[in-house]
Amino acid sequence: MIPATSPLAANGDTPDLPFYAASGDECMLFEQAWRNRLPVLLKGPTGCGKTRFVAHMAARLGRPLYTVACHDDLTAADLTGRHLLKGGETVWADGPLTRAMREGAILYLDEVVEARKDVTVVLHPVTDDRRTLTLERTGETLLAPPEFMLVVSYNPGYQNVLKSLKPSTRQRFVAMEFGYPDPDTEAAIVASETGLAPDRCVPLVRIANALRDLKGQDLDEGASTRLIVYAATLIKAGMKPAAAIDAALLQPLSDDPDVQAALARVADLALG
Amino acid sequence: MIPATSPLAANGDTPDLPFYAASGDECMLFEQAWRNRLPVLLKGPTGCGKTRFVAHMAARLGRPLYTVACHDDLTAADLTGRHLLKGGETVWADGPLTRAMREGAILYLDEVVEARKDVTVVLHPVTDDRRTLTLERTGETLLAPPEFMLVVSYNPGYQNVLKSLKPSTRQRFVAMEFGYPDPDTEAAIVASETGLAPDRCVPLVRIANALRDLKGQDLDEGASTRLIVYAATLIKAGMKPAAAIDAALLQPLSDDPDVQAALARVADLALG
Amino acid sequence: MIPATSPLAANGDTPDLPFYAASGDECMLFEQAWRNRLPVLLKGPTGCGKTRFVAHMAARLGRPLYTVACHDDLTAADLTGRHLLKGGETVWADGPLTRAMREGAILYLDEVVEARKDVTVVLHPVTDDRRTLTLERTGETLLAPPEFMLVVSYNPGYQNVLKSLKPSTRQRFVAMEFGYPDPDTEAAIVASETGLAPDRCVPLVRIANALRDLKGQDLDEGASTRLIVYAATLIKAGMKPAAAIDAALLQPLSDDPDVQAALARVADLALG
Amino acid sequence: MIPATSPLAANGDTPDLPFYAASGDECMLFEQAWRNRLPVLLKGPTGCGKTRFVAHMAARLGRPLYTVACHDDLTAADLTGRHLLKGGETVWADGPLTRAMREGAILYLDEVVEARKDVTVVLHPVTDDRRTLTLERTGETLLAPPEFMLVVSYNPGYQNVLKSLKPSTRQRFVAMEFGYPDPDTEAAIVASETGLAPDRCVPLVRIANALRDLKGQDLDEGASTRLIVYAATLIKAGMKPAAAIDAALLQPLSDDPDVQAALARVADLALG
Amino acid sequence: MIPATSPLAANGDTPDLPFYAASGDECMLFEQAWRNRLPVLLKGPTGCGKTRFVAHMAARLGRPLYTVACHDDLTAADLTGRHLLKGGETVWADGPLTRAMREGAILYLDEVVEARKDVTVVLHPVTDDRRTLTLERTGETLLAPPEFMLVVSYNPGYQNVLKSLKPSTRQRFVAMEFGYPDPDTEAAIVASETGLAPDRCVPLVRIANALRDLKGQDLDEGASTRLIVYAATLIKAGMKPAAAIDAALLQPLSDDPDVQAALARVADLALG
Amino acid sequence: MIPATSPLAANGDTPDLPFYAASGDECMLFEQAWRNRLPVLLKGPTGCGKTRFVAHMAARLGRPLYTVACHDDLTAADLTGRHLLKGGETVWADGPLTRAMREGAILYLDEVVEARKDVTVVLHPVTDDRRTLTLERTGETLLAPPEFMLVVSYNPGYQNVLKSLKPSTRQRFVAMEFGYPDPDTEAAIVASETGLAPDRCVPLVRIANALRDLKGQDLDEGASTRLIVYAATLIKAGMKPAAAIDAALLQPLSDDPDVQAALARVADLALG
Repeated sequence: MIPATSPLAANGDTPDLPFYAASGDECMLFEQAWRNRLPVLLKGPTGCGKTRFVAHMAARLGRPLYTVACHDDLTAADLTGRHLLKGGETVWADGPLTRAMREGAILYLDEVVEARKDVTVVLHPVTDDRRTLTLERTGETLLAPPEFMLVVSYNPGYQNVLKSLKPSTRQRFVAMEFGYPDPDTEAAIVASETGLAPDRCVPLVRIANALRDLKGQDLDEGASTRLIVYAATLIKAGMKPAAAIDAALLQPLSDDPDVQAALARVADLALG
Repeated sequence: MIPATSPLAANGDTPDLPFYAASGDECMLFEQAWRNRLPVLLKGPTGCGKTRFVAHMAARLGRPLYTVACHDDLTAADLTGRHLLKGGETVWADGPLTRAMREGAILYLDEVVEARKDVTVVLHPVTDDRRTLTLERTGETLLAPPEFMLVVSYNPGYQNVLKSLKPSTRQRFVAMEFGYPDPDTEAAIVASETGLAPDRCVPLVRIANALRDLKGQDLDEGASTRLIVYAATLIKAGMKPAAAIDAALLQPLSDDPDVQAALARVADLALG
Repeated sequence: MIPATSPLAANGDTPDLPFYAASGDECMLFEQAWRNRLPVLLKGPTGCGKTRFVAHMAARLGRPLYTVACHDDLTAADLTGRHLLKGGETVWADGPLTRAMREGAILYLDEVVEARKDVTVVLHPVTDDRRTLTLERTGETLLAPPEFMLVVSYNPGYQNVLKSLKPSTRQRFVAMEFGYPDPDTEAAIVASETGLAPDRCVPLVRIANALRDLKGQDLDEGASTRLIVYAATLIKAGMKPAAAIDAALLQPLSDDPDVQAALARVADLALG
Repeated sequence: MIPATSPLAANGDTPDLPFYAASGDECMLFEQAWRNRLPVLLKGPTGCGKTRFVAHMAARLGRPLYTVACHDDLTAADLTGRHLLKGGETVWADGPLTRAMREGAILYLDEVVEARKDVTVVLHPVTDDRRTLTLERTGETLLAPPEFMLVVSYNPGYQNVLKSLKPSTRQRFVAMEFGYPDPDTEAAIVASETGLAPDRCVPLVRIANALRDLKGQDLDEGASTRLIVYAATLIKAGMKPAAAIDAALLQPLSDDPDVQAALARVADLALG
Repeated sequence: MIPATSPLAANGDTPDLPFYAASGDECMLFEQAWRNRLPVLLKGPTGCGKTRFVAHMAARLGRPLYTVACHDDLTAADLTGRHLLKGGETVWADGPLTRAMREGAILYLDEVVEARKDVTVVLHPVTDDRRTLTLERTGETLLAPPEFMLVVSYNPGYQNVLKSLKPSTRQRFVAMEFGYPDPDTEAAIVASETGLAPDRCVPLVRIANALRDLKGQDLDEGASTRLIVYAATLIKAGMKPAAAIDAALLQPLSDDPDVQAALARVADLALG
Repeated sequence: MIPATSPLAANGDTPDLPFYAASGDECMLFEQAWRNRLPVLLKGPTGCGKTRFVAHMAARLGRPLYTVACHDDLTAADLTGRHLLKGGETVWADGPLTRAMREGAILYLDEVVEARKDVTVVLHPVTDDRRTLTLERTGETLLAPPEFMLVVSYNPGYQNVLKSLKPSTRQRFVAMEFGYPDPDTEAAIVASETGLAPDRCVPLVRIANALRDLKGQDLDEGASTRLIVYAATLIKAGMKPAAAIDAALLQPLSDDPDVQAALARVADLALG
């Protein structure tokens, strides 16, 4: 276990810490997982702050952070590294997983279910008590230092049947669930991010929550905190609230004219 | 935010500005998004002027413009760059996204839903508050300058089920919807583009609008402004209107003989 | 617009002009499209003369012609070019599209719907008012000279559901439809191509037209002008007409014994 | 047209001519097609002698023969050629189509429907009146000499739905249909190939024809002439006829025990 | 057969032996298989100790152990080796199978059904009495020394239809089935791994067994021993048991809110 | 035909001949096929001795043997050869087919239906009277010496619909069917292979035959001779028969608990 005289002790008001408003004991759980070398799985909807949370914790724990946005074509070699041709010679170039293990960094794999299966399987020996990575191509075997941590995230909301984490992968992680912040916290976040007066942020949050209630009926996914920030940014820049709400909160959610009309009515009602 | 003493202030009658007839406050919204570093999503049917609009705004804002027509085989490396073999050595060659970020340019991804998923996901760190691009292959991390902007477009009209923007991608953009210009504006555009007398353009616009009403019934997509311009060009060059309308407005829309006959009747009626 | 003092003015009886018997104003429309820099789409059944028409017009307009037969595996790089390894160095080799743009030639993409989607999309910036081609791999941007023209063709008869031109591609072309020549013209063409006496060509054309009437019932596609030319060639070479008709007009159309028998009866009846 | 003073005139009893027993005017038709530069399509069941026929005709016409067995993974480059790396330099290596065109040879594509679509399409410019092949990779355009001929074959018996010749490809060939030889001819062929006494070949042919009648019921395909030759070879070598017939005529046709039993009964009955 | 004076004789309390609590005669069977050069197949649910068992046995038998986590994209070359470019020359680099055969090591293929078929087939000559591996690319043929052993594992619980071991592969292995340890053994394992007092481990094991009973109803797979270890680790580090149980035992098993609630009730009941 | 003064004449008791207990005239048929240059197809269930038979015959005929286990990703180039980069130069490396043809060896393709179609088609010119192999990549054409022989095998028991030999491939082989040896022969084989007393082998064979009767009901495939050998090996090494039978004869056949129970009952009954 990593001793308590770690950078996290010097918490409080670190100047360059990315802003994160905790809604429970997620910071403590993350820190304990890190100290005890347990990998972590973050679950939650798009734009609810998972990425920000990891950035915040990496800064608090004083560890470098490597983020990889996973996708269909991400292969194991994109994580571990590959040989490049330099001066007629093949030279090995570390991937982010290898680099993170060498440096004792935090590796964050965003939307890990999107990756190809060979990616998730390459994580297995890293996530059990071996904490090793074998680079078949170089013959090297890396042992993760205590400071190394693997964090993965995904959005259960639109996890499809073809792509899901196999039990043998899931059961390698301590898991925590994220949701949208409560309205007051969210309005404070939006105000802090955009400089718009808090009382002008409150109705935007009210609209977003009204739209979130439509999830599963007309919408695949509710409005994220990020979209509220966009709307507030445009209003702060001088745009009329109605135009800003349309461009930032309604148009991004759907292309269907009927749904658009419904969203507009919901927004109007929320504004009261 | 980019200060108001930017090139846009010198608006009015810039000589080399690509012609664009605004139909609302789309120019203002685009400018505000640019000043506030928000990425923009343009939605609308084919040939309604989205590409022209972006060219117009890039010129007004004094930014270089890189356009990428997305397709099935467009990979992340096509955007970010790749190693080429030169003189027995691999040399890195920037892709348009990397180049646009280095130069503070506007990158326009046309029909972004056609791209493979790894493309849309590579855009994620560029489109959130990090505005960074990590080039795994070179180990470089780029931070976008304030002048950089990402614009994407797609046509909701024939967006298929397999290919759609994931909510986690959509919710990273301020969105605006485009339609065809109103008849008078469109006739003025056609006249301006072709040199054909405005009163000879009016009936062509009338035909196009009659054909647009058939969308969803006999046609996948109505006649674009571009096709009206083609018809006007051929008429201006001396062709008989009936032949020009057939070649430029009717034949491109359908191959079905029955539909062709129906289109011809609709065109006749529209001419009165 | 290309001025009227172009090679087309010197029309009439150019010695090396590939033979083409016009059946309407298609030559004039093609010429106007070329002079006004509009791309052209040719639609029509197999073997009806589309390729010959393009060769004829390219010669009349005095432009080099590059023809590409499109297929499933044709990629954008096959059109634009690629790097080849020469002497340990990668050297760029222009593809036919790039070459045609540099030389102001006519590029003819035969059966364009067969190409992969990235091919049709690479044509977009070439076919709108930009008329530009960006070679991502070299960083070069080409502007098409006025003499450059893009012509594409396809056969609506067996255009399948999976493969069709997207509206955003179709609406970039002036379109013209081709059919088989009328019987007298076709007999004259066959006589001219083979040297067989015209009165011996007439019954072959009659058979072909009888077989064309079976399209959609027993046959996917009627007998092409090319097959009539084959039959006439064999007869001219001394084969018995019945054997030549079987080998050149009946056997190529179907493998089904019942259909073969039906075709033979139709041919007998047509011969009277 | 190739003049009649060609090698075929010196026909009769050329010593090294591969044995072929003609069953109609197929040799004359093939020769006329060759003299008149028409490509030929051979249709017929497996093992009925198509390949031997082409070898025979190539020898009679005094032309080199290149044979390519087509399959799922055969690409256009396998026919036209490709660059190979030699001494650090890419060197072009002709494929069989290119070689055949340079040498005025006959190119035989066996089971052409098995090839990928890009293969059949690369044949288009070779099979129409242009008779040209453009090597995109080298920029070379080859014109076929009069002696060059393209021959393709396929077996309509198990041509599947996914794989069939497109009309635009089929209509480029003079076609001829092959079947099994009549019993007397076939027995003579088997005797000539194996040295087994003709009267001992007759019952083997009778069995094969009895098995052929089962095609479409229990068997995908009847017994080929080749299998009769195998059986006769084993008998000539001293094996008991029953064992030879089982190993060469029955076991290769089916794995189903019930069908095997039925085949054995049919063979017994045919032997009388 | 390997003689009994092998390292296993010096069993008892080897200091560095990975801890493994045997639940039957699996150690004896594994040892006999190794001595008699028989490959072994381990079957059982995720996280039940298969990997630990192999590590334990490899240490007891004094053999190096190579572990490969199999996946969709694992190819035969990943096991056997490949040529790498070094200094302009291709150099052969052994894969783990080749290395294990050269060194007389134990090769463990985890989740072997996930590998591509060419992988399982490359194992055939290694697993029959030939015990040879032919490296086509180098022309070398390796004969396995007596100490070499191949061990594969898979989880029959979520073996899908598309991916299963072919009988011709399965029938090359001696097979043994694994399950979770009995409750007392499992609590002892958890206490030994985490340092948490054994009586505090007992209720965690009770919860896990209650959750395992839900397999097939609400869960794809029950809670593994590994997850109990995680929970105990967090409790030992000072977290409240309820929070640790939620993060380590409940959240990793399902994303469905209803299922989560059910799991929580089951855990509560198990705690009594 | 290869003369009778071949190594086979010196048959009888060759010291290093792999043991094979013939169950019919398969050796004579194989020898005649080899002498008369006919390719051979072996059909039969897994583990019944096909591979051993080929090894035995190759040794009797004094020919080198090359065995290739076919699979989904086996390409034609894996058989014929490929260019490797050595010292900056591409060097051709023969594949096993090419090597076997050069040396007059026997090439054995195990489970040939698993190979990709291009593999089976590359065999066509090797298996007809041409007996030639054209290496497109080198331009070389090999003629097989009389001693070369091609042998292929497959298991009709689990031949799937997608993967079957095309008639045009099947009809190139003399075929022979293999089954399990009769009980006495099989017990003798097991005793000879393991050194276990013959009377202790008899009940193991009885169990295997009882399990084979379940094929098609509960099992995909019955127990192979190889599995009996495994069981006998473990018993000979001192394991209790029940444990050895479970590990070697029951566990490898199925993962289903119900089927396992049924197998155990069948084994008990067979033991009497």
